[in-house]
Formats: sequence, C-alpha cells, structure tokens
Amino acid sequence: MSRKNDKRSRLVDAADKLIYQQTFNSTTLADIATLADVPLGNVYYYFKTKEDILKAVIQKRTANLEEHFAAWEKLPSTKERLVAFIEQSATDAETTARFGSELGSLCQELSKNSSEISELTTNMMRSVLAWVEKQFKSLGKGERSLTLAEHLIARLQGVSLLTLTFKDPSFLQQQSKTLESWIETV
Amino acid sequence: MSRKNDKRSRLVDAADKLIYQQTFNSTTLADIATLADVPLGNVYYYFKTKEDILKAVIQKRTANLEEHFAAWEKLPSTKERLVAFIEQSATDAETTARFGSELGSLCQELSKNSSEISELTTNMMRSVLAWVEKQFKSLGKGERSLTLAEHLIARLQGVSLLTLTFKDPSFLQQQSKTLESWIETV
Repeated sequence: MSRKNDKRSRLVDAADKLIYQQTFNSTTLADIATLADVPLGNVYYYFKTKEDILKAVIQKRTANLEEHFAAWEKLPSTKERLVAFIEQSATDAETTARFGSELGSLCQELSKNSSEISELTTNMMRSVLAWVEKQFKSLGKGERSLTLAEHLIARLQGVSLLTLTFKDPSFLQQQSKTLESWIETV
Repeated sequence: MSRKNDKRSRLVDAADKLIYQQTFNSTTLADIATLADVPLGNVYYYFKTKEDILKAVIQKRTANLEEHFAAWEKLPSTKERLVAFIEQSATDAETTARFGSELGSLCQELSKNSSEISELTTNMMRSVLAWVEKQFKSLGKGERSLTLAEHLIARLQGVSLLTLTFKDPSFLQQQSKTLESWIETV
C-alpha cells in the first residue's frame, strides 16, 4: 500500500472508531487527524468535509458486513447462518455495553436529519434486513420472511440499546441465547 | 408565573425540542436561546452549561412520564395499563419516524460517555422498566416479570429504531398491535 493510501486508510480507521465511540456529531476533523496521526492540513487532501469521511467509513463498514455475509453463507444450514448472525452480536457484547450497536447508533443519530448521509446508513440497515429475510425464505417462511426478519433485527437492536443503557454485556449475551432458541423453534 | 420563570421554562422547552429533533451534541446554547427567544447573554443567568439545561429537560421529561404512569394506573385492569403504555408509542408514530424514540435516542447518544448526565437518562429507562415490571407482577408473573418487561421495552425500542431508519410510521403502528396481542396472550 502506498504511503498516500496509508494516510487515507488511517484517517478512515480513526473516523470509524471515533464516530462509534463518541457519535458523529461530536467528532471533529481535528480529533480524526490527531488519532490518525495525520496533520490536519493534510486531511483536506483526502476529504473535503466530515461527511466525506463518513461516506468512506460507511463504505468500509459495508464491505466488512458483506464479508460477514459471505462467511456465514458457507455454513451448512440456514439456521446455523442465522445463529452466527446473532452470535456476532453476543461476541461484541462488551463493546456494545460501552458504545451500543455500531449500525443502530449511527442510524439513530443520522436519521434525525434526512440527508444523503442518513440514506447511506438506511441502506446498510436495508442490507442487513434483506440478508436475514433471505435466510427465512430459504427456511420456507415465504411471505412471513420479512416480518420475521424485522422481528429479529428489532429485538437485537432493542436489546443492544438496553445493554448500552444499563452497561450490562451479560444482558445481550443472555438475550442472544433466547433469540437462538427462537430460531430453533421458528 | 413570574417573567423570570417564564424565560427559564421557555429555555427548557426549546432545549427539549432541539435535543430530541437534532441530538444533544449538535444542539448549541445559541440554538436554544434563539428558539426560546431569550438573548444568549441571559441564558447564563439560568443555566451555566448545556449540561445544566439537559438536567432540567430530563427533570421535565421525568415529571411528564410520572404523569403518564399516574393516568394509566387509573385504568381498571393491568392489561389495559400495558396496552395504554404500548399505544402511547403508536400515537407518537409520526414523530418517531422523524426523530426516533425520545428516551431511546437520548440513551443511545449519552450512554456512549459515562457521565453524570448519562446516569440521569439511565434512571429514566430504569423507571420505565420498573413500572412495566410492576404491571407484570400484578398479572401474577412473579420472577418472570422483569424478563417480560425487558422483552417488551427492547421490542418497542428496536421497533422505534427501525421506524426511524426507514421513516415508516405504519411499521410502529402495526408492531404495536402485535405487542398488544402478545399482552393479551402472555
């Protein structure tokens, strides 16, 4: 990777971390430059605005999500894929108790303003929903698949919010087990 | 009400609205002063910091919540109380599709920083949870009451987040009906 790309990706990684840990609105370009160890003046060479860095962060997160989907699709059964999706949340329980759901908190914050940026986070949530719906379809749930996908994602998002609010990772772990049992019986 | 209190309450009302509509982090004291039609210099007479106004907003929201609890407790049956609690969310569906859950979005935003302020929002969520748990206890659910209360609140919060993300009030209305049926069968 060239030195130029290295700086750009350091900025994106720093922005990704800060946006998650302290919200988009309270993160400044200066915070991002400091964490990335890139002079503030150089930031403008790569990104004109904070919104531009956010777009790159969402691109990175989307690629990461697609890698997860691809890995889970290699699992032998559909139920195992859905369980892997739920277990991913449980694995992140400690971080969720500190900062909430990465996707959920960004949707919560940015959707308050209808903008091009909030459309990008909405599209990420739409991808998650579509992937989960596809799994329920492959379980033969037909027209109920979307409702089941919405149910699963709403529960995971609500549980993540309570995990964050009460700073209690065990709540997410225990609720993930409940959701995995629900998958077995659905 | 004295002129002095009138200015103070105008500031709290303006802060309440702006914090909900555009997040706490992106709301400035100047925004609040403008909406309240109070000169910025006067704001400091009532509140030293934005955190101080937030404390007053949370106090006001807590009082409002307790009024709701008191009104619902006058309903003849426990199930009607729980249905009224759920229907409150459905009534707010249009606003939720624009700005999310008032309590949920504040918890999501402020819990990322452990602070005195985030403790206050956690306490509000704890009050909601305790009230719902009390209703399940009065339905004879014993030790399962807390789990049922967590389930109901997590689902409502998750549904609110998806309602906001997809800007779709009908999703919250329809999911409220599903939750009301769940209450009937629980």
